[in-house]
Amino acid sequence: MQQALDLAGQALFISNPNPRVGCVLVNTQGQVIGQGFTQQAGGPHAEVMALRDAAAQGYDTRGATAYVTLEPCSHTGRTGPCCNALIDAGIAKVVGAITDPNPQVAGQGFAKLRAAGVAVEMDDAAGAASRELNIGFFSRMVRGMPWVRMKAATSLDGVTALHNGQSQWITGPEARADGHAWRARACAVLTGIGTVLEDNPRLNVREVATPRQPKVVVVDSKLDMPLDAHVLKAASGCTIYTSSTNLSKTEALQALGATVIAMPNAAGKVDLAAMLRDLGARGTNELHVEAGFKLNGSFLREGLVDELLLYMAPKLLGAGAMGMAQFGPLQALSQATPLQWHDVARIGDDLRIVARVAARDQF
Amino acid sequence: MQQALDLAGQALFISNPNPRVGCVLVNTQGQVIGQGFTQQAGGPHAEVMALRDAAAQGYDTRGATAYVTLEPCSHTGRTGPCCNALIDAGIAKVVGAITDPNPQVAGQGFAKLRAAGVAVEMDDAAGAASRELNIGFFSRMVRGMPWVRMKAATSLDGVTALHNGQSQWITGPEARADGHAWRARACAVLTGIGTVLEDNPRLNVREVATPRQPKVVVVDSKLDMPLDAHVLKAASGCTIYTSSTNLSKTEALQALGATVIAMPNAAGKVDLAAMLRDLGARGTNELHVEAGFKLNGSFLREGLVDELLLYMAPKLLGAGAMGMAQFGPLQALSQATPLQWHDVARIGDDLRIVARVAARDQF
Repeated sequence: MQQALDLAGQALFISNPNPRVGCVLVNTQGQVIGQGFTQQAGGPHAEVMALRDAAAQGYDTRGATAYVTLEPCSHTGRTGPCCNALIDAGIAKVVGAITDPNPQVAGQGFAKLRAAGVAVEMDDAAGAASRELNIGFFSRMVRGMPWVRMKAATSLDGVTALHNGQSQWITGPEARADGHAWRARACAVLTGIGTVLEDNPRLNVREVATPRQPKVVVVDSKLDMPLDAHVLKAASGCTIYTSSTNLSKTEALQALGATVIAMPNAAGKVDLAAMLRDLGARGTNELHVEAGFKLNGSFLREGLVDELLLYMAPKLLGAGAMGMAQFGPLQALSQATPLQWHDVARIGDDLRIVARVAARDQF
Repeated sequence: MQQALDLAGQALFISNPNPRVGCVLVNTQGQVIGQGFTQQAGGPHAEVMALRDAAAQGYDTRGATAYVTLEPCSHTGRTGPCCNALIDAGIAKVVGAITDPNPQVAGQGFAKLRAAGVAVEMDDAAGAASRELNIGFFSRMVRGMPWVRMKAATSLDGVTALHNGQSQWITGPEARADGHAWRARACAVLTGIGTVLEDNPRLNVREVATPRQPKVVVVDSKLDMPLDAHVLKAASGCTIYTSSTNLSKTEALQALGATVIAMPNAAGKVDLAAMLRDLGARGTNELHVEAGFKLNGSFLREGLVDELLLYMAPKLLGAGAMGMAQFGPLQALSQATPLQWHDVARIGDDLRIVARVAARDQF
């Protein structure tokens, strides 16, 4: 099963918005006869890849056991149901890591296999790892919203930019490359119009190889987006959430290929929670937020952040500078946003801290 | 030698301002016949303790090898020279970790042993560990100044206190106990008058067992120290550095047992660099700074901090709050105080980061 999980990990940059799934086929002699992981959306799932791998090597799959990190699908989406493929191949037993939270599957896959006489066993430890690898997919399926990961780069004293706006680069090249790997695994990268106007970033993946680029999402209340902004040329498209009703600017942006969605809240700003639900409905598993301290503060104030991805540079930048998120002022320490350490690692000269807003992964 | 280093570590809270030294005696059969580490100042050094240990067990020390983590002393301080004791005991060989930086020793110990026919070998890897364990002693001997360790407790976004001053407690009980262990190993704990007036702290060691309390040092430019401040009752005494010439207040503080030292700079504040040299002259190896963001900022601005001991709580406290050190504003990222990670560990729910100001340990 560990081998199947490793295979699932290979789908990290590839399978979005489908889950990252791995499958290993083992015959009755204990020999691995086929392996596969989920391909790009519309392409074959892990089970089919593994069956094809076995066939290509001339192995007989009858009587074999399939180790699969997510419940095989029972419905026909862009591909046929994997359950049928496993049954047709004569698989005798399926060891599954976890039930697919997709309401179109949700146990029906395992039921279908059992009904066809295939033995089904669960591996709960692998299930936890599979859910973790697919935290965004589970979030979308269970909560209808993406897993929101907020990325920031700060000094050890919490500074993200000097008072004069200088912020390139607080962290080192290894941290920036690592940050691109986290972009690559996300379905979409989100920023605010302030960052677009100040830095005109591309927000694409450059520092690591990836077969697909994430979508770019911009929160732009007043539709201030310059028509020559780099984000409008995003390979997987740019979606702009606004509270503006400026039709001519909307049409100009649409003419450039952007999707413009008006989603105002009562205060005349973009309704961030509604935006997340909409992004969920549009198939966004992991949303990678790289924004300034104002938009970061809004996300945190509204309790919409699930995870913090923080690159911390070994330097002090002092006072009169900007922090990672503008919210508060708090009146008591008990009002703090509580986090839980998820992972702490050195990346080049910097420290990478992944922390989760407490209990946000308990859905 | 590792055993000798482990013994030296046992002197961590004990031997100040003497170095932490361990000694292991091994006879020609390879048997450990004596062990010891440096006792409280004025008490026996590690070598004498090990010789006594061997004698108490009835072992013959003639022909034995002594593993010692610092060059045996050759001068008579509060105790007689360890070299003589080793020679008198018939020790045939000394494996030393590192030369004593004390100018009264500085190689003369090893020379004296060799002159007496004792073989001397060096263990450079152990030497690095011994120097590290005694970074404050080496700092005082080489630079004439203590090793300055600045302790702070912050949220993940760099906040040390809310705008209303609330700061107890940002970190958890394990981090606070760990902080007391770092106090316990310091010769002195330093704070500013602002912290005394706001929090009236004791700054003693309570959360861990220790046979000695560090001295307390307060930077108090105007001699605003309240006569009933807890720090004036510090078990090992309180030293106040001031730029004030208020004689009656000085005498009132002296009457309470405090040492008051006027050390003004041109700006009418306390000359912090001169204060550190004075603290060095007074036998301060490690200086543990627990101050507010203003005094912390002054130390950093003047380049007087060697090491940062940072407890980072897994929470976000937002804007409008206070950071760890008020200095700057910087005009360019290149003006940042560069640090190097020394150690990163989880302590209870918090993260403990030990970072050194780059190259400050290269003296």
